[in-house]
Amino acid sequence: MSEHSGEPGTPREDFGTVRIVGTGLLGTSIGLALGGGAKVLLDDPSPTALALARDVGAGVVDDGGAAPDLVVVAAPPDVTAKVVAEQLHTHPHATVTDVASVKLGVVEQLAQRGADLRRYVGGHPMAGRERSGPVASRADLFMGRPWVICPAPESEPDRVEQVRRLVTALGAAAVTMGPAEHDAAVALVSHVPQVAASLVAARLTRAPDPAVSLAGQGVRDVTRIAGSDPTLWAQILAANAGPVGEVLRELRADLDDVIEALAALGGETSGPRSWPAREAVGARGTLARLVAAGNDGRDRIPGKHGAAPTTYAVVTALLPDSPGQLARLFSDIGEAGINVEEFSLEHAPGKPVGLAEVSVLPAVRGALEEALVTRGWHVV
Amino acid sequence: MSEHSGEPGTPREDFGTVRIVGTGLLGTSIGLALGGGAKVLLDDPSPTALALARDVGAGVVDDGGAAPDLVVVAAPPDVTAKVVAEQLHTHPHATVTDVASVKLGVVEQLAQRGADLRRYVGGHPMAGRERSGPVASRADLFMGRPWVICPAPESEPDRVEQVRRLVTALGAAAVTMGPAEHDAAVALVSHVPQVAASLVAARLTRAPDPAVSLAGQGVRDVTRIAGSDPTLWAQILAANAGPVGEVLRELRADLDDVIEALAALGGETSGPRSWPAREAVGARGTLARLVAAGNDGRDRIPGKHGAAPTTYAVVTALLPDSPGQLARLFSDIGEAGINVEEFSLEHAPGKPVGLAEVSVLPAVRGALEEALVTRGWHVV
Repeated sequence: MSEHSGEPGTPREDFGTVRIVGTGLLGTSIGLALGGGAKVLLDDPSPTALALARDVGAGVVDDGGAAPDLVVVAAPPDVTAKVVAEQLHTHPHATVTDVASVKLGVVEQLAQRGADLRRYVGGHPMAGRERSGPVASRADLFMGRPWVICPAPESEPDRVEQVRRLVTALGAAAVTMGPAEHDAAVALVSHVPQVAASLVAARLTRAPDPAVSLAGQGVRDVTRIAGSDPTLWAQILAANAGPVGEVLRELRADLDDVIEALAALGGETSGPRSWPAREAVGARGTLARLVAAGNDGRDRIPGKHGAAPTTYAVVTALLPDSPGQLARLFSDIGEAGINVEEFSLEHAPGKPVGLAEVSVLPAVRGALEEALVTRGWHVV
Repeated sequence: MSEHSGEPGTPREDFGTVRIVGTGLLGTSIGLALGGGAKVLLDDPSPTALALARDVGAGVVDDGGAAPDLVVVAAPPDVTAKVVAEQLHTHPHATVTDVASVKLGVVEQLAQRGADLRRYVGGHPMAGRERSGPVASRADLFMGRPWVICPAPESEPDRVEQVRRLVTALGAAAVTMGPAEHDAAVALVSHVPQVAASLVAARLTRAPDPAVSLAGQGVRDVTRIAGSDPTLWAQILAANAGPVGEVLRELRADLDDVIEALAALGGETSGPRSWPAREAVGARGTLARLVAAGNDGRDRIPGKHGAAPTTYAVVTALLPDSPGQLARLFSDIGEAGINVEEFSLEHAPGKPVGLAEVSVLPAVRGALEEALVTRGWHVV
């Protein structure tokens, strides 16, 4: 049961009666996180999922005896609008929110169904785990993560505020956006990166073994999220087809330029080329411009804690592959009074040694290097 | 000077006289790593770079008094072939190797120049740093990294063995491939991921601030290498135009399918769609198939130490943002006798708290969770 314990993110407010429809990972985690601050009623079409959510302490099974003040729909994306419409109809005084990762389609479908949009406030917690279902739930799943609140134009301000208070009480960082603005944003920072990672990783399926044996940290990073669930992602991409398609068409225009530049540089010839290679004017410029644009885009991603991007100094130490070495490393860093901003562990192919990359503020780089060398670390 | 100290990777062999042409990061690091095992002669067109390399202890300035047994050309990629040809001509008994990151073009240019390919053995150390130049050099820059050896068909076996011994003595993991095979491999695992990262990051240049504020670990990972140097990468991509272009055209074919599927799912309409959205048969299948192919490709990337890919269990703990917390975490993990396979630190936007993701073998997941909870950590 320790998995399901969790201290409250903030002091509890009174949310009255909260009904959660859908007791998967997100719905159950919301119930757990509400703890004693609300009467939580649970519902799910799967009796097993419902019983599990109750058993881990997310709330009580809804017997229809109490009218909810707030309904949270945590159903799969492709049925969210239908379930939200039903809840708005069945509970004529309740505010209804949801957690679907694409928002405009839900509002459009609700409007088409004639639902009471004044009481609907869309939401999207940007949190998840590799595991799913009520058993994977955590009271602090949302702690410190962005949770986008997407009011419809018709949403009443009091209802929006009610959802914002809930989100804050769950420990999340509330961000308010319109549904279309949200969908365009997640296309850029989530859905298109997913497609790109899959496109790169898909190239490796038929690669010879010696080629993949050269894979280093770069391709690992680019393809990490390519391990995602195909069925879920087909659903998400389909639900956000417009914004994702738009960004991908822009991306393809740049890709076309790169392919054309490479062809001009001799990339379409087969057999030995003549040297110096024939070069179309500007082909190298096209390549450099894309990488430079990537520099600019990368620089826009916020740094630690949502602050402006910071360039950290990276100090790399060799790490023997045995228990306790990382502890010793961080103990030594801690003794030196240095705060680690970012950390990664890279593996050396074919060698029983790791490369520990410690990112610190540039001002303390020298102190860190000295502290490590003094304590016997091999700084590389 | 501590930056330039380094213990030998392996017991030193006698390499005779080694001449290094080009004392940037790679050339100077090779000189440092050779330590006392060879007489190292340095040369560079820049007197400053040459003096710096000498001053950090990479070797002595070549006065032309000794005939080298081995010449290592560590010049920029676009002049490598010219310099290798000169060295083969000037030192008629020496073996000549290089460190350029694209190999076929060098061999082709050497053949065209009528160079003695029997004494040439191409090489590509897959190592680098964010900083460049002789001052950034490290004796153990190559420790545990792959170093591809690319003999030409004409290369004499003894010469290949001579270079292989050098690579091994520098602490690198020698991998032998033909030049064309090498170029195709790095197109897949290095050059195309670089282009993809730049293409995704370039989309963020004109994104609204609220959109980039939602950026999470996924887009950070995908775009990390998008921070690379545009001039260098224009040179690398141009030098490997054929193989990179070929993989990018395959990637574009998949991208076209995705864009077409999204259009069929309503992604080309503007304004409110009708629901349920019209759907071409198979459009969702196309999306799911790409993500599934990405799963397969991702699974091919070798795991720790070049072994078969391993799926680790990830345990996530909340980490207060103050010095010493990581030390305490790793100390607690070490006390429990658990070996950390991978580790990453994720930042919670707007919150003074980090998420420490500890990857361990699945068998010890439970033990780690218990150890952490027992010691007061908040496992999420």
